Amino acid sequence: MSGNTSKCLQLENINPNFITMEYAVRGPLVIRAGEIEKELKQGVKKPFDYVIRANIGDCHAMGQKPITFLRQLLNLTFDPELLNSPNYPEDVKARAKTVLEGCQGQSVGSYTDSAGIEVIRRQVADFIAARDGVPCDWHNIFLTAGASPGIKSVLALLRCKVDGKAPGIMVPIPQYPLYSATIAEYGMTKVDYYLEEESGWSLSTAELQRSYDEAKKTCNPRAIVVINPGNPTGQVLTRQNIEEIIRFAHKNKLVILADEVYQDNIYDKDSKFFSFKKVLTEMGSPYSEMELASFMSTSKGYLGECGIRGGYMEIINMCPQVMAMLTKSITASLCGTTAGQVAVSALVNPPKPGEPSYEKYIAEKNGILGALKERAELVHKTLSSFEGYKVNKVQGAMYVFPQVVIPPKAIEAAKAKGLPADVFYASELLESTGICIVAGSGFGQKPGTYHYRSTILPQTDVLKDMMNKFQKFHSEFMQKYK
Amino acid sequence: MSGNTSKCLQLENINPNFITMEYAVRGPLVIRAGEIEKELKQGVKKPFDYVIRANIGDCHAMGQKPITFLRQLLNLTFDPELLNSPNYPEDVKARAKTVLEGCQGQSVGSYTDSAGIEVIRRQVADFIAARDGVPCDWHNIFLTAGASPGIKSVLALLRCKVDGKAPGIMVPIPQYPLYSATIAEYGMTKVDYYLEEESGWSLSTAELQRSYDEAKKTCNPRAIVVINPGNPTGQVLTRQNIEEIIRFAHKNKLVILADEVYQDNIYDKDSKFFSFKKVLTEMGSPYSEMELASFMSTSKGYLGECGIRGGYMEIINMCPQVMAMLTKSITASLCGTTAGQVAVSALVNPPKPGEPSYEKYIAEKNGILGALKERAELVHKTLSSFEGYKVNKVQGAMYVFPQVVIPPKAIEAAKAKGLPADVFYASELLESTGICIVAGSGFGQKPGTYHYRSTILPQTDVLKDMMNKFQKFHSEFMQKYK
Repeated sequence: MSGNTSKCLQLENINPNFITMEYAVRGPLVIRAGEIEKELKQGVKKPFDYVIRANIGDCHAMGQKPITFLRQLLNLTFDPELLNSPNYPEDVKARAKTVLEGCQGQSVGSYTDSAGIEVIRRQVADFIAARDGVPCDWHNIFLTAGASPGIKSVLALLRCKVDGKAPGIMVPIPQYPLYSATIAEYGMTKVDYYLEEESGWSLSTAELQRSYDEAKKTCNPRAIVVINPGNPTGQVLTRQNIEEIIRFAHKNKLVILADEVYQDNIYDKDSKFFSFKKVLTEMGSPYSEMELASFMSTSKGYLGECGIRGGYMEIINMCPQVMAMLTKSITASLCGTTAGQVAVSALVNPPKPGEPSYEKYIAEKNGILGALKERAELVHKTLSSFEGYKVNKVQGAMYVFPQVVIPPKAIEAAKAKGLPADVFYASELLESTGICIVAGSGFGQKPGTYHYRSTILPQTDVLKDMMNKFQKFHSEFMQKYK
Repeated sequence: MSGNTSKCLQLENINPNFITMEYAVRGPLVIRAGEIEKELKQGVKKPFDYVIRANIGDCHAMGQKPITFLRQLLNLTFDPELLNSPNYPEDVKARAKTVLEGCQGQSVGSYTDSAGIEVIRRQVADFIAARDGVPCDWHNIFLTAGASPGIKSVLALLRCKVDGKAPGIMVPIPQYPLYSATIAEYGMTKVDYYLEEESGWSLSTAELQRSYDEAKKTCNPRAIVVINPGNPTGQVLTRQNIEEIIRFAHKNKLVILADEVYQDNIYDKDSKFFSFKKVLTEMGSPYSEMELASFMSTSKGYLGECGIRGGYMEIINMCPQVMAMLTKSITASLCGTTAGQVAVSALVNPPKPGEPSYEKYIAEKNGILGALKERAELVHKTLSSFEGYKVNKVQGAMYVFPQVVIPPKAIEAAKAKGLPADVFYASELLESTGICIVAGSGFGQKPGTYHYRSTILPQTDVLKDMMNKFQKFHSEFMQKYK
């Protein structure tokens, strides 16, 4: 009775989309990194002492300390008896009371509305209105467990064949693999538009139109995803570029999905974050009536609270009946975690100047963002000096995405192992240095080019160690295969 | 430019499954209950002072206090500085340290493995092994944000047409609407089998076979869902009944989905919880090789931590390649919330006799379960005395599901309002007493019968008030329509 033929579920009769989907950020190389960590613990000899996980934007895993204010707010809401403790500042206590009053039975252990705790949704709306100088209706805010579930629920809404054609979703290449994975999982068509590496990963209308026209032949393009600041590319879109995208989307009746989770991560002095909501609204009619979903997370920025799973989405200009169906689809998952919702409250309603927590909060926030800026520059400068590398500036987000000219002999060696050349490069790097990065093919890249994504998150001493090991590896790799 | 014709998304071109799906537990009556609460706050005069939310198993919302041990564990993991505080017991500190050592960078702010923190998965496996007296492999454990995402991911795995036929999922009627909602969302076929109300909501093999044979004509039945203890029915399956279901599933090559989230909620002295895992394993080959997914949550039992979103699933005997695909599908959602994972740790690794926290923990646990038992009996006794009611014992879970003989004149009055008779009854109850229950049609019921689900969760004084209001309402309703 052993063997798989006796099983109800086999590869041939399960969801075929599960088989095609890929999610490189947690793919085989990352699994291998985990194995190596275990081997090191067991005393297996390696040419390195520890694994550097530069594969994922996981700030605390790389040593970033949590913002005290956020953790205090969590403590006070999860254990209201601490409201009597003198160890917590009054302004944080007041915020905790506000949240608790918004919970059924004054407990974060109760289910919340599926769209989240009303008082926190209102705080998000105030935050967005202040950020953009444009009104925001709290009914349009949904609290989500990180940005991912929000993105998935909007993509699921678009899952509808029109005139027998599958829905097409335009995504930038390179892109964050949540999009490719979800589009594959949902059986939709991914419509690639390429960012221009030569001009700092900018976005040209001509390329958008080319991509759209080509896709039109086989699917029904319904939405465009824009990631700003860019992941994995680290670019920050100019206001003019955003306006062009909005005009393009309007002309072609596309819903805009704006992934803006890195809005606080801007390092380049000449770059500035503009939200799609702000630009679209300020462009006036008809653009200001366009359907837009924008996504934010507590996992990035300066909080870096990835494990807590907090986030929100704002959806504007959607027809009320459709909004009702989206809302209904979310109710079956009951609600997002209250810890994540409290984290969102900390994100959008931080201590104000003059309040007891302010000085500590602002020092911690500036410290984290300052250190990220330094590391963005360090990584860019170091990698730019490598032979055969082309590296765009890290204007924002948490990643660098260098192009590596891989010598033909290395491409052959990769082929012999049945690996794409960029995966081979990343795999050799991992095995010989312990540095874990993600090959460019996981994000998409122009055919014949090779890239990888590395985070800029390791703390400065580790990052310097990483850059040294990387330099040594790369020069040996080039010597071997040139 | 106003009006919906200008919109990209309209009811005609969005995911059609979103339109058909229903989720009664958070349906229109519950939304109305929220409106009534706001009206009361604004001073609108009503024949009652407050809304009693008996529609959802939301323990803390109804006044249940959190288990101190769980909240302390959360505090210590979210703010490790408290590990130096004398206010926390040593055994809880030791547990917190174990969890933190399992987190990247020793922070709950880091992403965890998609299947959850390894040390907590191991704790779950130990807990299951001790519960069942049967081995449990921690690799088979996935930590989930409540039970719902686990159930949804297993159902998504089954989403595959075979021989052109849609997958069929057998669900009990009445059932918890997560199943009907997800099956509709995923475009699968719901295959109803009826529980026998006359014999205390038990499950007959003849009915299973009838349901299966009928379904075979139009779909491809692939799995059977069993909810034990039952939601909304409150029954606890006997071991013999479980064996029959397992034999039936084996004969018909069905994967078993065992929803066992109420396993700690047993009130009837003659009832006992047996897990499907235990029974199936002890039945020996070939049953012990069957594919089974079982689900557990921190939202129910005696913890009642609905908002934190903790849960786990155990999947056994699945072919490794299929398991890999399921795992891959989960990675794109990154990971469940760490707060929920810590809550799972509290559930499966509670204080042991002799440890400093034990006395308080066990007193709180027994207090909660004892009070639930009392209320289960009170609700059953009171409702049984109502004219035209048939009420089965609440053997377990958190609900009562009475059958109400609704007089023909009331059915006519409902029709005039365009409502099913059970929705009319529940709506009249809400408007005249503030009691919010869910009509039986949200769970499914035999045609021509009318039921509703009420929780047994209001604290005893509120519950007595609720029963008095309910009695008055029902006798007036019967007078008016008899």
